[in-house]
Amino acid sequence: MQDLLIPKMTVIGTGLIGGSLALALKAAGAVGVVTGVGRGLANLQQAVELGVIDRFSQDAEAAVADADVVFLSTPVKTLPVMAARVLPHMKPGAILTDGGSVKEHIVAEIEPLVPAGVHFVPGHPIAGTERSGAVAAFASLYQDRRCILTPTERTDTKALELVRRMWQAAGSEVVTMDVTKHDRILAAISHLPHMVAYALVNAVASDDRYGEDILKYSAGGFRDFTRIASSDPSMWRDIALTNREALLDMIGGFESMLAELKQDIADGQDDSLFNFFLRSKERRDALL
Amino acid sequence: MQDLLIPKMTVIGTGLIGGSLALALKAAGAVGVVTGVGRGLANLQQAVELGVIDRFSQDAEAAVADADVVFLSTPVKTLPVMAARVLPHMKPGAILTDGGSVKEHIVAEIEPLVPAGVHFVPGHPIAGTERSGAVAAFASLYQDRRCILTPTERTDTKALELVRRMWQAAGSEVVTMDVTKHDRILAAISHLPHMVAYALVNAVASDDRYGEDILKYSAGGFRDFTRIASSDPSMWRDIALTNREALLDMIGGFESMLAELKQDIADGQDDSLFNFFLRSKERRDALL
Repeated sequence: MQDLLIPKMTVIGTGLIGGSLALALKAAGAVGVVTGVGRGLANLQQAVELGVIDRFSQDAEAAVADADVVFLSTPVKTLPVMAARVLPHMKPGAILTDGGSVKEHIVAEIEPLVPAGVHFVPGHPIAGTERSGAVAAFASLYQDRRCILTPTERTDTKALELVRRMWQAAGSEVVTMDVTKHDRILAAISHLPHMVAYALVNAVASDDRYGEDILKYSAGGFRDFTRIASSDPSMWRDIALTNREALLDMIGGFESMLAELKQDIADGQDDSLFNFFLRSKERRDALL
Repeated sequence: MQDLLIPKMTVIGTGLIGGSLALALKAAGAVGVVTGVGRGLANLQQAVELGVIDRFSQDAEAAVADADVVFLSTPVKTLPVMAARVLPHMKPGAILTDGGSVKEHIVAEIEPLVPAGVHFVPGHPIAGTERSGAVAAFASLYQDRRCILTPTERTDTKALELVRRMWQAAGSEVVTMDVTKHDRILAAISHLPHMVAYALVNAVASDDRYGEDILKYSAGGFRDFTRIASSDPSMWRDIALTNREALLDMIGGFESMLAELKQDIADGQDDSLFNFFLRSKERRDALL
């Protein structure tokens, strides 16, 4: 087993994110035995049947005892709770890392709990779909996607390097940045769009002046645009509340931009409107 | 030719909308000769090469003289201008119809120009992509999509019936409603989402506090969500300005919904946030 990057790994939260990492590392020959931990027995049994994990346990403390790497992929709000439970049971030299979408809050909660000899490396793979559960996991989820690691001054260099190699083995391009920058960037490119999509669907669906569901007239553009409003409500409640400050700031920036557009429409500013749309189109086209 | 629904048809504006209608009607055996009219010679030549139209002309007045149906699919603002040019040259019994995304403005401009013996049937197929030009046209664009016709008290019943059969032959489900209702529904399901997408891309791209383009960190969700911001800027300027009143009202409704969400985040209202997201998810999931 000496060639393996991670001989023994425990994944806590065996859903889309944790399950896909396990599948990717297995496909890359970078991991030995993967133990899954979760609350739902049916999901864990299915994860074993699908080959996502090798075995499972509902006893998190016992399941981390011999792990070289413990990957936490529970919902954001549960991450510090689970970390507090498992950190005292991890072996010397072992690494705890996570996939949480918000980092400042999580790092502030988890770092003080890390015992001497155990390492914590905060991380966030920029990938996902609106689906969830082990059944949604697939090995190429992280292929050619970015993974952001947010080391602090307390982060062990060798542990950081191993986690970097883990995500590279899963196919990701790894970048590092500080937690505040991470949270602001994610508020802009992910958390704000989700809030806007949720609000848009509610605004359109609430318009009942014609006594019929006007969403039935929607076409492909509306469906694509609002796909992210199908995401898990409790997950997004927690992200919104744990990244509150950055998110409120981004919503404010978006409100100003929309107010400018609205004013131009009200005033019939042809040129200004054209330039507003063109600027947006050029920026969007550059992503293709 | 007596079995053909439309022996001779002229399509003014031979792009995605007009070109796809021509292709769909040819595939259904519902049309004879299709003449294309447009400003761009290269696009018209390409349309003939691709089999989208049979022949073309850059002289709109001459090209409509023997047409049974003239389909106007130019940008919204050009529709009344083109209608004014061609209506005096159409033969008795001929039908002018259009595919404009906004109806109240267009009907108010065009109806007074219609000579006795010629018929005008306002319509709008709810279909499209962010691509444009004859090269983007395809025969199945309207398959299983809704087409809204907005007859007025002046609309001839037989002409309305022929246009209904035309869109049915193209694969669409045809519904009729009054122009005001059409414009309000489209403001909600199409025009508002485009405004929101354009504003979102500009808001995110304008955040330059890190001296780098943060859009490079965006993943699939952001790309899908903002795809409609790649739509044609001049087309959307014209739609925004010709459906101004309904659109401003819908933007206002969306702003209120977003403000409610923002307040819940600021106040840490867990339950209220969860319910907001759940309500949106249920409505969005119902579209699948």
